Amino acid sequence: MRVYFDNAATTAMDDRVIEAMLPFMKEHYGNPSSVHSHGREVRSAIEKSRKKVAELLNASPSEIFFTSGGTEADNTAIVCGIQTHDIKHAITSPLEHHAVLHTLQECEKKGLLKLSVLEINEKGEHDLAHLNKLLKENPKSLISIMHANNEIGNINDLNAIGNLAKEHDAFFHSDTVQTMGHYKHDLKNLPVDSIVAGGHKFHGPKGAGFLYVNKAKKISPFIYGGAQERNMRGGTENVIGIVGIAKALELAYEDMEGHRKHVEGLKTRFIEQLRAHISGVEFNGLSADLDKSLYTVLNVSLPPSEDNAGMLLFNLDLNGISASGGSACSSGASVGSHVLRALGASPERDAVRFSFSRFNTVEEVDYTVEKLKELYGVIA
Amino acid sequence: MRVYFDNAATTAMDDRVIEAMLPFMKEHYGNPSSVHSHGREVRSAIEKSRKKVAELLNASPSEIFFTSGGTEADNTAIVCGIQTHDIKHAITSPLEHHAVLHTLQECEKKGLLKLSVLEINEKGEHDLAHLNKLLKENPKSLISIMHANNEIGNINDLNAIGNLAKEHDAFFHSDTVQTMGHYKHDLKNLPVDSIVAGGHKFHGPKGAGFLYVNKAKKISPFIYGGAQERNMRGGTENVIGIVGIAKALELAYEDMEGHRKHVEGLKTRFIEQLRAHISGVEFNGLSADLDKSLYTVLNVSLPPSEDNAGMLLFNLDLNGISASGGSACSSGASVGSHVLRALGASPERDAVRFSFSRFNTVEEVDYTVEKLKELYGVIA
Ligand SMILES: Cc1ncc(COP(=O)(O)O)c(C=O)c1O
Ligand SMILES: Cc1ncc(COP(=O)(O)O)c(C=O)c1O
Repeated sequence: MRVYFDNAATTAMDDRVIEAMLPFMKEHYGNPSSVHSHGREVRSAIEKSRKKVAELLNASPSEIFFTSGGTEADNTAIVCGIQTHDIKHAITSPLEHHAVLHTLQECEKKGLLKLSVLEINEKGEHDLAHLNKLLKENPKSLISIMHANNEIGNINDLNAIGNLAKEHDAFFHSDTVQTMGHYKHDLKNLPVDSIVAGGHKFHGPKGAGFLYVNKAKKISPFIYGGAQERNMRGGTENVIGIVGIAKALELAYEDMEGHRKHVEGLKTRFIEQLRAHISGVEFNGLSADLDKSLYTVLNVSLPPSEDNAGMLLFNLDLNGISASGGSACSSGASVGSHVLRALGASPERDAVRFSFSRFNTVEEVDYTVEKLKELYGVIA
Repeated sequence: MRVYFDNAATTAMDDRVIEAMLPFMKEHYGNPSSVHSHGREVRSAIEKSRKKVAELLNASPSEIFFTSGGTEADNTAIVCGIQTHDIKHAITSPLEHHAVLHTLQECEKKGLLKLSVLEINEKGEHDLAHLNKLLKENPKSLISIMHANNEIGNINDLNAIGNLAKEHDAFFHSDTVQTMGHYKHDLKNLPVDSIVAGGHKFHGPKGAGFLYVNKAKKISPFIYGGAQERNMRGGTENVIGIVGIAKALELAYEDMEGHRKHVEGLKTRFIEQLRAHISGVEFNGLSADLDKSLYTVLNVSLPPSEDNAGMLLFNLDLNGISASGGSACSSGASVGSHVLRALGASPERDAVRFSFSRFNTVEEVDYTVEKLKELYGVIA
């Protein structure tokens, strides 16, 4: 059996997404900037895709900019957000993805801003009183806090953070890469200034993403060149990527509740079986709390074991199970997880992130639990 | 008849490129950064693609970085080149693509560098004595001069420019988007520090490009995030784009001479027939000079005509012919061509760029000439 439980890293493309992309590989090859018929048919597909994304998110098409992925979109929001709005101070969390953390650290290194890092507890919850204090001391900051964490699945309260941001005239960017296509975003009512998406996290293509920027907070381009994306991003558009990401989002919205129910069922079963069979099992962050974490992510902390120490992912892989992880450890080849280290997780315990999609099955959960039982010497 | 003569804007994908991409849409969906089997098979495809590109260009795989296209690659070379090498002065040409010009202008606006613009003659040839003078006054400059111009097809002498660059310790970036896949680049012997490519210009995918940076002149990343592309570009890789661009380059090299002969034949026939039938026809830049211009590009300057003034592309489109252009004019909706304006081309004459690929035929040339004869009232 080959089990793919690494859907927070990337997902398999939906066949219907591939079907939607193929005509733009085969027949419709024009450059969307060209005014002739070959170009117009492609331009029209891009604008339809933009309209579709905007509709689903309750945004305006002029607020959606296609990018090469979530990382470029995060870089754009941060680098151009601080530049356009003359922001000199940023607030982020130690649990952010490197697309945000490294970008902010680079801006600080260049002397463009001072960076403050939010306090968190051992479950990865943010101290909003600390945020409030930082905002009082530094009005007109950029806040970059993700919607949900890609390693431990913790969901942050965008409304609470966004309202604080509004109070203190801050620019609020949220990395929504892990929730896009899995949760609904109502951008006319959500108090965020920018959010981002990467198509490959919800059964769309890799190399395609988008950035939403609220029209009240326009920002300058990150990549200069042609007048593409309403002068916001130079470069011939990745037409198949754009058509693909829009189709993937459409499919995600078509039956989000159904997908959620199915995947939540898998996660619940997994938690129950691990608790029943692996003594000493724990869960990192809030990932075992169904209301406060992504239904797609379960971060399991396994008791120290000589056979598996540092080898757990490898042992799972040998059994055909693809998962990801790393521990709080930073020695050796693996640099470990900055998220688990920030939580103060024990470096002795192996951590593995199982992440699910609507393509996974109950049988895969049961098979994986069986293998974990074997690996941890649980007699059947 | 539907004729696509806009191959300098973008090309149709080769079916064999699509075939190479499909398995990475359907079966091999892992994240190349994942260490499990789903990830490893994809990582291996990326590294094979990098090796293939490096081999064809006589470079080392560690010098090739995949990007989202030519524009991102140009931005990276320029923005990160000046930053890493502490460069405060840049030299470019008024004929560069906006991916270069706008990027440099933005750097100047931010106070990062002073920009000098090379003198040219009315054929678009650069004054290398002026370059030499500028370099003498400003050693350690960044030079950004393209290999061949996308509008008029002029080919610049990279050896002459590169040797001057070496003499004056300058960083020499060349935008090779229009020559990649159509001319051979031997990077162990060509005196350039960085060059770029966009896959869609040689029958590969849109949204995929690469940047070559000479190992002696390493530069910092442009997009921050994960450790992808040897820490040079954060973001989950556009796997299908990478596999596609490498395959497209491979096919281009497989029979470059054959393609060239075929396309050069079309261009020669086109020039001859236009000269024979349209009195007053001229050619912008060096585009009618087969030795000094791209064999893929012909920029035709048509005599003033009431019926076609500002309408030529539209009239061609009505006849099923896709070409591009614009005049030296900057009034009205069209902003015109900065290249033709820099050459001092007459705003009264309509300019149209016909650009060819190996998929074009003699019949398409003849049909287009017939239509031009009709549009210009030439009695058969
Ligand atoms: C000379 C030149 N440079 C850069 C580009 C931009 O490349 P891309 O569209 O792949 O971003 C183009 C194509 O439009 C070009 O012709
Ligand atoms: C939270 C988060 N942000 C950003 C990214 C980067 O997105 P992409 O890989 O599409 O560039 C990822 C995925 O790796 C992610 O999980």
